[in-house]
Amino acid sequence: MKVKGALDYFVIAPIFILGVFQECVNGRASLHSIPRPRPDDAANFARWLVSQSSWGVLNTISSDWGGAPFGNVVSFSDGLLDKGEGIPYFYLTTLDPTARNALKDQRSSFTSSEYSLGTCGKTDPENPTCAKITLIGKLVLVDGNSKEAEFARTALFVKHPEMKGWPKSHNFEVFKLEIENIFMINWFGGPKPLTVDQYLHAKM
Amino acid sequence: MKVKGALDYFVIAPIFILGVFQECVNGRASLHSIPRPRPDDAANFARWLVSQSSWGVLNTISSDWGGAPFGNVVSFSDGLLDKGEGIPYFYLTTLDPTARNALKDQRSSFTSSEYSLGTCGKTDPENPTCAKITLIGKLVLVDGNSKEAEFARTALFVKHPEMKGWPKSHNFEVFKLEIENIFMINWFGGPKPLTVDQYLHAKM
Repeated sequence: MKVKGALDYFVIAPIFILGVFQECVNGRASLHSIPRPRPDDAANFARWLVSQSSWGVLNTISSDWGGAPFGNVVSFSDGLLDKGEGIPYFYLTTLDPTARNALKDQRSSFTSSEYSLGTCGKTDPENPTCAKITLIGKLVLVDGNSKEAEFARTALFVKHPEMKGWPKSHNFEVFKLEIENIFMINWFGGPKPLTVDQYLHAKM
Repeated sequence: MKVKGALDYFVIAPIFILGVFQECVNGRASLHSIPRPRPDDAANFARWLVSQSSWGVLNTISSDWGGAPFGNVVSFSDGLLDKGEGIPYFYLTTLDPTARNALKDQRSSFTSSEYSLGTCGKTDPENPTCAKITLIGKLVLVDGNSKEAEFARTALFVKHPEMKGWPKSHNFEVFKLEIENIFMINWFGGPKPLTVDQYLHAKM
């Protein structure tokens, strides 16, 4: 009967543990289900990292603070679940400085860390083997009536369901990062050489 | 005996679950042990958020990419465990663009999200009740032989033990953010009014 107790435990506990794990990576259910590509497969790795992430820091030139680089925590999506297309879309309001900054100066970058995915284990977030990516380019407003905005809203709402209910009076609009350069470190030896074309045409 | 099985489970499983939880917030043991302050206690809340975080995105003006704001994932520390003093210290090498940028143009900001702490539950990272902070100021090199650098290295190595073993040939040096402005959102209604003086003198 002691054995039965132990069996109960080994059967039931993993289910609980799995439940907790799913809850606690980033404090929410994890989105990642595509296996981590090899670090030397730079294009696929970068696309994996972007598609599996749900938030990051969006950087603009601050008009309020003397042209300082201003980072802001934002949610984003580059497509439907496990069908990321590489271009990050954001849902921003000009009540927030980031959207206001971008409308004055489009220079921007968007930074995300693999650490958020929970796949770095005990490796330090600054260790080069815990991947990080910064997409550098222009932060532009997407025409709200375009097909692209419709796609972006669907992609955003799938990964961030509560966005759909955010106050209409705040006038949230779709922005995207038009990527011009990619800075990714996912192993020793400095940033991986990776063109925007290679990134956008990677087959996930 | 069925009861004993159940009892075994209820006694042992929470210990396992706790173990997994500690491991999987950010993929490493959680550092946070001080209770979350009330959102309207802005100074203490900001100090809590900074002291309990272990990484974020450090922004500089990129000389490589036409003055674009360049965010980079970094680890940091503002003091010993649960004894944060509010000023973020970094361990950077000029092999990385962030340190090189700062030596040319000190304008900088550092952004961290409560989402990384695992205390936002299912709330979206962009929701104002999941706190985010951006410290805006100057990123400066600290004299490596100063008492301040000694303090900073101790503070960094306590929270990031692997840093101590990082390659000497990479010439890692201590940088700090001299804070000039604080942007923190931790509730509805926009950024909390908070001066640098209030922040630095908060009693944790």
